[in-house]
Amino acid sequence: MSKLVGRRIKEDPKDAKTVSHKFLVRGGYVRPVSAGIYSLLPLGKRIVEKIEAIIREEMNRIEGQEVLMPVVLPADLWKESGRYESVGAELLRFRDRNDKPMILAMTHEEGIVHLVRTELNSYKQLPVMLYQIQTKYRDEARPRAGLIRVREFTMKDAYSFHTDQADLEKYYYRCHEAYERIFRRVGMKNVLSIEANSGMMGGKVSHEFMAICDCGEDTVITNADYSYRANREIAVAAWKFDKGEPLPLEKVSTPGTKTIEEVANFLGVKPEETGKAVFYQDARTGELIFVLIRGDFEVNEVKLANAVKVPELKFADDSAIEAAGAVPGFASPVGIDGRKVRIVIDRSAAETGNLVVGANEADFHYRNFNFDRDMAGTECIVTDIACVREGDPCPLTGQPLIFSRGIEVGNIFQLGTKYTESMHCDYLDRDGKSHPMIMGCYGIGVGRAMAAVIEQSCDEYGPIWPMSIAPYQVELCAINPDKAGVGEACEKLYADLTAAGIEVLYDDRGEKAGSMFSDADLIGIPLRLVVSPKTLADNAVEFKVRGSRDAEKLEISSAVAAVAARVEAEMAQYR
Amino acid sequence: MSKLVGRRIKEDPKDAKTVSHKFLVRGGYVRPVSAGIYSLLPLGKRIVEKIEAIIREEMNRIEGQEVLMPVVLPADLWKESGRYESVGAELLRFRDRNDKPMILAMTHEEGIVHLVRTELNSYKQLPVMLYQIQTKYRDEARPRAGLIRVREFTMKDAYSFHTDQADLEKYYYRCHEAYERIFRRVGMKNVLSIEANSGMMGGKVSHEFMAICDCGEDTVITNADYSYRANREIAVAAWKFDKGEPLPLEKVSTPGTKTIEEVANFLGVKPEETGKAVFYQDARTGELIFVLIRGDFEVNEVKLANAVKVPELKFADDSAIEAAGAVPGFASPVGIDGRKVRIVIDRSAAETGNLVVGANEADFHYRNFNFDRDMAGTECIVTDIACVREGDPCPLTGQPLIFSRGIEVGNIFQLGTKYTESMHCDYLDRDGKSHPMIMGCYGIGVGRAMAAVIEQSCDEYGPIWPMSIAPYQVELCAINPDKAGVGEACEKLYADLTAAGIEVLYDDRGEKAGSMFSDADLIGIPLRLVVSPKTLADNAVEFKVRGSRDAEKLEISSAVAAVAARVEAEMAQYR
Repeated sequence: MSKLVGRRIKEDPKDAKTVSHKFLVRGGYVRPVSAGIYSLLPLGKRIVEKIEAIIREEMNRIEGQEVLMPVVLPADLWKESGRYESVGAELLRFRDRNDKPMILAMTHEEGIVHLVRTELNSYKQLPVMLYQIQTKYRDEARPRAGLIRVREFTMKDAYSFHTDQADLEKYYYRCHEAYERIFRRVGMKNVLSIEANSGMMGGKVSHEFMAICDCGEDTVITNADYSYRANREIAVAAWKFDKGEPLPLEKVSTPGTKTIEEVANFLGVKPEETGKAVFYQDARTGELIFVLIRGDFEVNEVKLANAVKVPELKFADDSAIEAAGAVPGFASPVGIDGRKVRIVIDRSAAETGNLVVGANEADFHYRNFNFDRDMAGTECIVTDIACVREGDPCPLTGQPLIFSRGIEVGNIFQLGTKYTESMHCDYLDRDGKSHPMIMGCYGIGVGRAMAAVIEQSCDEYGPIWPMSIAPYQVELCAINPDKAGVGEACEKLYADLTAAGIEVLYDDRGEKAGSMFSDADLIGIPLRLVVSPKTLADNAVEFKVRGSRDAEKLEISSAVAAVAARVEAEMAQYR
Repeated sequence: MSKLVGRRIKEDPKDAKTVSHKFLVRGGYVRPVSAGIYSLLPLGKRIVEKIEAIIREEMNRIEGQEVLMPVVLPADLWKESGRYESVGAELLRFRDRNDKPMILAMTHEEGIVHLVRTELNSYKQLPVMLYQIQTKYRDEARPRAGLIRVREFTMKDAYSFHTDQADLEKYYYRCHEAYERIFRRVGMKNVLSIEANSGMMGGKVSHEFMAICDCGEDTVITNADYSYRANREIAVAAWKFDKGEPLPLEKVSTPGTKTIEEVANFLGVKPEETGKAVFYQDARTGELIFVLIRGDFEVNEVKLANAVKVPELKFADDSAIEAAGAVPGFASPVGIDGRKVRIVIDRSAAETGNLVVGANEADFHYRNFNFDRDMAGTECIVTDIACVREGDPCPLTGQPLIFSRGIEVGNIFQLGTKYTESMHCDYLDRDGKSHPMIMGCYGIGVGRAMAAVIEQSCDEYGPIWPMSIAPYQVELCAINPDKAGVGEACEKLYADLTAAGIEVLYDDRGEKAGSMFSDADLIGIPLRLVVSPKTLADNAVEFKVRGSRDAEKLEISSAVAAVAARVEAEMAQYR
């Protein structure tokens, strides 16, 4: 300990809002170098190395072959896939000294597809999974939360290649199981895999693995028994809507009312008796999209983007709305022309009768809008584009949906042919016919996993590391090491424990007990032995489990065997 | 083998000039992605991982603590040390999305000094050594020779910090020994540590570890018994010069003679009876430097740069030479003004009498230049700035010096306070007084080490991997796996060998023997077992050591034990 590099710090870092950020910095596990860029100090490096070893074991168990691709890639590969243009400023682009455009890879679909198309070409060689544990760089605009949202990070990324979708699915679920084992083995207590939208990765089915904890950036939506699990982007509910008896459409004056709340108050109706018109534009082409949703719902932009197959949406400019003949704030589904504007009606608005909607005239609304009647013959998409709300009925059980917070510690995607088609990564089948390979990809953020373990396993004094990834297994504290043979007893314990294959951090500094123990709490080693003149007078050492209140005494002669048994028992839980 | 990713290729890569480049690509160990940027395929990754494990063991043995610093660093750190300006285009500079200048680290002196100055401040915490095994990027203008000169590479870089020079030196030699162990353990056969100039790293004492092989880019200069070892930049020789009896200075017409050869021929003298004038300029300031060296020697620019303390030199422009009043091609040491031009006289020219030198007039030379007489009172530096030539007398023994080729696989530097002073990395001594720490640094190129092993250990068919880093320890080849129980026998051998802890690559493809064996040669696994219907008829397997001519037969029932014993015996050599 007197030589261990990594200062313990009493104060929380100024910008730290999450416990993992606080303790990682305060305990001397990591040190910031620039915004979202960290060095791993020896304690952090030891933990990361153990997490990586567990990941490696599980990846090898599902027949993964480890490779290492470069961080710096030629931009050409990303141009082939189309992502050089489609990904934003988080992709770091630069030119090398010969003026060739290059990128810093933030993920390696392009890299691996390029590798696989040069190495493999026959159905006989498939399926195959390749993985790496490697440095990545994502030029985040706002890195935050310590290791949870960084710019440079270590990621385990894996890619599988198949001859058909069924084989991909089979492997995908094997990998799903491997991920469950990994998160259990690194000591996470509550990780849910949830259905997710695959976003910029393309493809269809995907899952996010969410470490549930209060500080999580993401919302996890489940029912009480967790049989339903989804993220905000794709969650659905078993909403029931009521069409009722259609009443006659009636134009009413609603002076000065613009928001749903104002209109509802003015007309004495509830928000769920109104319909809200929202205009979006395709961020690229500027194409206008008209959305109608019931007043008590919010538009889920991911669902909307999927419905209209537009990769990036923005709110429409008033000028664009007006150019389409609509009055901003009072736009109406009645009379809108589906040949001029794309129209998407959320089920809530299509399936609820007698809604208050805009009349496309300043200060006027309609009462009693009924989709079936009032938009009959209008070209439009009717689908679910609504955000689920806490308490909405679960689509599986009807129970109220529960919102939790989570950190995304892993994700897996069935990519299909998204990359293999554009980049011509083909295999020859039994008959010599060429087909694009079917691809899956599987990621785990290693540093983020370390942070997530802390979020789930700490107390007010510091992390409580699971034995499987603790930087050391036992901390040995000497109180007054220069008195009454304490130093000698500790040296012997240290040598004997080490000889028994146990990883020991020996606090040989001769600090006062209080400061030594608060350092020990920050370092979070699962088991602690304390030797002092007092314990030695009883031929004993004090033994304490990190996170428990009480210490017990072990006879010094049997302490090594007792500790070794305890270490082994705990390690066994994580195999 | 049927699933191993990594194509074997019959043809040498077009640009490959070294055997390691050829075999690494042909054997499916690595694959180029861009100039000087490679992916490691599974075979290459396995080898690299073993090399890294050996390095890690040896670094931990000399009390190294492993850390991981970022690849992307803020330019500020490099501005502090001065290298942001002093290092050329090989340092990749870019701006992040917030327009902050950043770099891709090609080495981490700045990174580690920044880390250490935040973590350590007391003499009690020193000495300390931190190391990492990490990706680096150097924007080489001309990457070449496969993994030997690349742009992106994995490096083990280590940095030690001390309170005084004596402690640094003690540690430096411990690290030197660790390096010797590492290179022996990874299976290099001939690695020489040679004295070197520390160049852009600064500091004074440094050593390069050179793997001797024909394709090496560097020249290694030794005597016959290796008691003298140096690189070209700092090598010296025990030259003897003869002043003789000074004859009178005599101006002679030498029309049209510009080179030493022309002058010598014209006047009927030998090159060693002439003095050659060469002008350099400080690449930054433009300051002119006049050099005189005997006609049979070449100027060693590193020695010259050290002598004049100029980091970068260039040949002088004619205009600058003329501006100083000298006549290009006929410049003379006689009458040159040491107050206007810096003058450096090589010992060869100062200690040899009666030389032919320029007369500072077109088509004229002087005979009988004698430094002591003809430059008396001229301000100048007299020192050794000559390149050593093969056969020159060894400074230790007088024996002729021998030139060999080598690949630099490691280097170690006593940096002193070069970085700690400029970056204010201080410690407090026993009396609370502040001093800059004394620093050493120690590097090994991991991929280059793999290439160097091939250069020293291969035959015309492929690499011959040392057991310690071989991708697998045993290759098991099935000839006609679907006949006479060959497949079943192999499956059993595979299972038994694996259970015995041996790493086996099983060639299950059913290829013809010729193609299977040529693949095996390219993969270079040290031991090979062949099972065929013919061997099985004798209850035997064929056993062959890679690189030996003859195979022997092992009884199948005892084969596993025999192979395990052989593997263990070979592994023991590398511990």
